[in-house]
Amino acid sequence: MTNDAHSQPSGQDQELLYDPAVAQLSHGERARTLLETVNTATLCTLSHKPADYPYGSFVTFSMDGHLPTFFISELAEHTQNLRRDTRASLMVAESGGEDPLANSRVTLVGRVELVVDQKLRESAKESYLASHPSAAHYIDYSDFSFWQLHVESLRYIGGYGRMSWVDGEQWRLSEADPTISFSEGVLTHMNEDHGEAMVDYCKAFSKAIDTTSATMTQIDRYGFEMSASTQKGPRPIRLAFPEPILTSEDARKQMVALVKKARQLLDAQSPE
Amino acid sequence: MTNDAHSQPSGQDQELLYDPAVAQLSHGERARTLLETVNTATLCTLSHKPADYPYGSFVTFSMDGHLPTFFISELAEHTQNLRRDTRASLMVAESGGEDPLANSRVTLVGRVELVVDQKLRESAKESYLASHPSAAHYIDYSDFSFWQLHVESLRYIGGYGRMSWVDGEQWRLSEADPTISFSEGVLTHMNEDHGEAMVDYCKAFSKAIDTTSATMTQIDRYGFEMSASTQKGPRPIRLAFPEPILTSEDARKQMVALVKKARQLLDAQSPE
Repeated sequence: MTNDAHSQPSGQDQELLYDPAVAQLSHGERARTLLETVNTATLCTLSHKPADYPYGSFVTFSMDGHLPTFFISELAEHTQNLRRDTRASLMVAESGGEDPLANSRVTLVGRVELVVDQKLRESAKESYLASHPSAAHYIDYSDFSFWQLHVESLRYIGGYGRMSWVDGEQWRLSEADPTISFSEGVLTHMNEDHGEAMVDYCKAFSKAIDTTSATMTQIDRYGFEMSASTQKGPRPIRLAFPEPILTSEDARKQMVALVKKARQLLDAQSPE
Repeated sequence: MTNDAHSQPSGQDQELLYDPAVAQLSHGERARTLLETVNTATLCTLSHKPADYPYGSFVTFSMDGHLPTFFISELAEHTQNLRRDTRASLMVAESGGEDPLANSRVTLVGRVELVVDQKLRESAKESYLASHPSAAHYIDYSDFSFWQLHVESLRYIGGYGRMSWVDGEQWRLSEADPTISFSEGVLTHMNEDHGEAMVDYCKAFSKAIDTTSATMTQIDRYGFEMSASTQKGPRPIRLAFPEPILTSEDARKQMVALVKKARQLLDAQSPE
């Protein structure tokens, strides 16, 4: 066990049973995906009073492309702070889970600018109302304005031992994972109806050749993760799709192709 | 309907059916109570890189008296920021509820200082482990230290239209509401077994004299709130305890005394 403060304090070092170079979402993609699924956060601004203290406030936000978008009152402290200094950050955290430090979170650093242009304002308004329909009650209040965070860099922390800085350019190239709208359905379907196929995936494509059953735990555009029951207990197995997927139909096709390939491999290895 | 951005956008202005001067928790007490029931937050520090941007990070914390207490690694960004500048704030938000802007939240502003003194360190450690038992795994890691926020002022927002600044002195005088450990039990008991008593409270002590049934929705050291069913629909009624309570036995005694007083009043008003 190392003394690395950010490693999971499990005390266990097990051999990885799958290719560690398997395709994964980048930290930019993970951050952009998290921002698609959460719509409240902490906005950090520089306080007008006491001067230049970092000031955190609770905010609701939407994503207008890669621009976190706020609809805030001139009366609010954060708005008065931004009128004075636009430097800011937005901390967005995943919730749920037993160990809060195992959750993912991201801090987007940049400048929060007032949206002045009419066209940009329409786009901001559309994204905000889609994410916060009840704001329709006060969307035309004269002391409220749209503001957007122009991200210069971000710090992504995906739980223990998975963290990095991502620059603004990389951020703007990072799309939200397209599977978020259908991943749950795929997981349910695979776990209810295709347990055998997953055992074959594990036996054919990983070192978990003694897998007796497997549960799909996660899916993203690049691949999927299973928990395989082995003689040494449950072990994580991640496998890549031959090609990144966009739709649930893509997922279905590639799962079918993979099981065919797995069975060919297992038949070829079979002693009979 | 006013154009006050921070009022609940309900479009309704109903007459209050109880004394608006009824004793309530102060904003300092509400803030201190919130901090007793939540143990994760956003810590805002001044970034070392990019220099002097406000930087929000996810943290776990405990309360050591009135000192929010952190156990953080030298490797973490916020620690590097604090080593350079101790100015900070901590944003703590209530979760749950349909409308996130109706939830309460507090921003504590001050300086986060390293805990050096051995006795203070023991106290910090005790409070932290009580709040985060799993930290025992790494409580002796050499690159982790205890830090505490010395609050200079705080901003409390209790939802729509209920907000103020509280100074550091007032903060240190504000205790957490003692009912948090037993309030749920009192509510369940009252709602299951004492519906009639609550109707009598409403009829005798408020303007909701046509109350047909009532549900207790909240209790604190100074009083309790009910939702009364009236001809005009459900209406909130808050009543004060004759004396602030500390224990569930105090609550029971005062509820019993109040119902006795209510029935005397109602009997005296009765035309027979």
